[in-house]
Amino acid sequence: MSPGWVCPVPLRSYPRVTIAHGGGGQLTADLIDHLFRPAFAGPADSAASNDSAVVDAPTSRVAFTTDSYVVQPLEFPGGSIGDLAVNGTVNDLAMAGARPVALSAAFVLEEGLEMSRLAAIANDMGVAARAAGVRIVAGDTKVVDAGRADGMYVTTSGVGILDEGVDVRPERIRPGDAIVLSGPIGLHGIAVLSVREGLRFGSDIRSDTAPLHRIVAELLAAGVDIHAMRDLTRGGAAGGLCELAEGAGLGIVIDDDAIVVPESVASACSLFGLDPMNVANEGRFALAVSADDVDDALAVISSHPAGAGVAVIGEVVDAHPGVVVRRTRIGAQRVVDRPMGEDLPRIC
Amino acid sequence: MSPGWVCPVPLRSYPRVTIAHGGGGQLTADLIDHLFRPAFAGPADSAASNDSAVVDAPTSRVAFTTDSYVVQPLEFPGGSIGDLAVNGTVNDLAMAGARPVALSAAFVLEEGLEMSRLAAIANDMGVAARAAGVRIVAGDTKVVDAGRADGMYVTTSGVGILDEGVDVRPERIRPGDAIVLSGPIGLHGIAVLSVREGLRFGSDIRSDTAPLHRIVAELLAAGVDIHAMRDLTRGGAAGGLCELAEGAGLGIVIDDDAIVVPESVASACSLFGLDPMNVANEGRFALAVSADDVDDALAVISSHPAGAGVAVIGEVVDAHPGVVVRRTRIGAQRVVDRPMGEDLPRIC
Repeated sequence: MSPGWVCPVPLRSYPRVTIAHGGGGQLTADLIDHLFRPAFAGPADSAASNDSAVVDAPTSRVAFTTDSYVVQPLEFPGGSIGDLAVNGTVNDLAMAGARPVALSAAFVLEEGLEMSRLAAIANDMGVAARAAGVRIVAGDTKVVDAGRADGMYVTTSGVGILDEGVDVRPERIRPGDAIVLSGPIGLHGIAVLSVREGLRFGSDIRSDTAPLHRIVAELLAAGVDIHAMRDLTRGGAAGGLCELAEGAGLGIVIDDDAIVVPESVASACSLFGLDPMNVANEGRFALAVSADDVDDALAVISSHPAGAGVAVIGEVVDAHPGVVVRRTRIGAQRVVDRPMGEDLPRIC
Repeated sequence: MSPGWVCPVPLRSYPRVTIAHGGGGQLTADLIDHLFRPAFAGPADSAASNDSAVVDAPTSRVAFTTDSYVVQPLEFPGGSIGDLAVNGTVNDLAMAGARPVALSAAFVLEEGLEMSRLAAIANDMGVAARAAGVRIVAGDTKVVDAGRADGMYVTTSGVGILDEGVDVRPERIRPGDAIVLSGPIGLHGIAVLSVREGLRFGSDIRSDTAPLHRIVAELLAAGVDIHAMRDLTRGGAAGGLCELAEGAGLGIVIDDDAIVVPESVASACSLFGLDPMNVANEGRFALAVSADDVDDALAVISSHPAGAGVAVIGEVVDAHPGVVVRRTRIGAQRVVDRPMGEDLPRIC
């Protein structure tokens, strides 16, 4: 049982989720009213009970994103599927330069899931949403037969506002742009792996899950012309950098030395034969800015906890379009392959 | 194998979905580029490859909705999880009075799912989206271990524009309003049940899945002041009408005789001990309008195939707030209970 949660009366007959909780009738309504709504409620009247929500969004351009989360296990050092689902969607909007305004949360629950565990994860979502200053305004709940899901899968979608003049996309990357990385890599993936394998790789291994939209807002407010950004989630730093290079149709050269891999991440990776560059992060991003903007970008990013360890890690070049090359200390160069995807499954 | 689908070269080595297809690397990119993108592509450049999409939405109010689909089996007479996911989200927006502008699609795929089956369902989604005139602009793909999903779960979210002056919500319902039902009930639920049980209840049993936003747009254009609407999905007509009564804080009285239950739906319900009022529909809706607007509403709705069989089925009363009462032919009255949710699980 989650220590802080007291099961409200209408749910007391159901210590576990039943198929009928997903049937759209009275039991679904009870779950919404007595579990999700209190967990998600913000200072304002936020709720997740309607089929659709109306969001005040005075704008001409809306950013829109969706992600399903199937991470195993559901809880890990530094977070849970709940934080991950909220922060991940906030970050997808932020990476487009948008201000997140509303999230939705759709649950596929496994019959038999402990109600207290669902409550704890819904609570994590509410806490993460309030911390990020966004509201969860719409939701859905389905229940599948026992064994047909791993506790739960969560899909969050998000709507954000793109302010006038904001234009962040890989096509804007130019040769000579600096590639900035916001911090050390590999923590989220190794944190999940550690519980999965029942190992402790070091006390500093906690997921880096964090919302990044405030850093982005400050970068824009400081006049940094962000050409493009990627959060380095599935596929890791390698995946994100390859996407930037491919999207730009330009090459990227990075310095191995400039990329910070925490010692415990490095040991775990070496034990499991993983490349830290391929390991998922949930609160790290890379951005491309012109050389003139680098100092301002570093100043803004380093002023945030999630940006401790920010550094310039490379630059954009005309050569080898679409390809990321890694330069080692001794001057050797090797191509960074886009990971196939099988290294660390179900990491988010 | 789906007859119409020719597996493109980059996917040929994978007749079935593997865990790595959900890893966010090269295999995920192949799936997006060679399966989802061609299936979803509309006349315009619509794609589902980006983490987020930018939607032109000149508005001050955006409607936002999400739904997960876990229907079993994935295909049924008249549709598939693909049509259902697109039409359901279009309809949630339409029921708020919004014009749907963009959808997202997030997939949780089971390892081992036949690639051709995924292609067929993605194709259904593309066909349904084009038929509805909306674009699928963002997506996500995760893969879970064999056995941990039933082929696939799909979560669609949607963004719509609320035009100036549109205000559709149960709080606007007034005593004396007419309750209009757009057509016969129970077809979707019984169509799914028929394949599940390996029965044929009659050749007319096909899911009623259909997009409803064009009917709604025409109602608004014709000057019908729609007070509130509900599509009668999970929970059936009973669930939707109870939601309207509860939201309005008023009573609803319906005439049993006015509700059309197709003969084959009635037989199947009697065989399985189901109340047709509790059986899910995916292309039917109820609306509350003032008596003055009834004729216009009937004229608009009946001009659409999805509105064949539209009728006034009851009225809103001051008495028994929040409660729906059914009046039988012999004058007896009984309360319509909101279904608990266990009658027909996994129907959408």
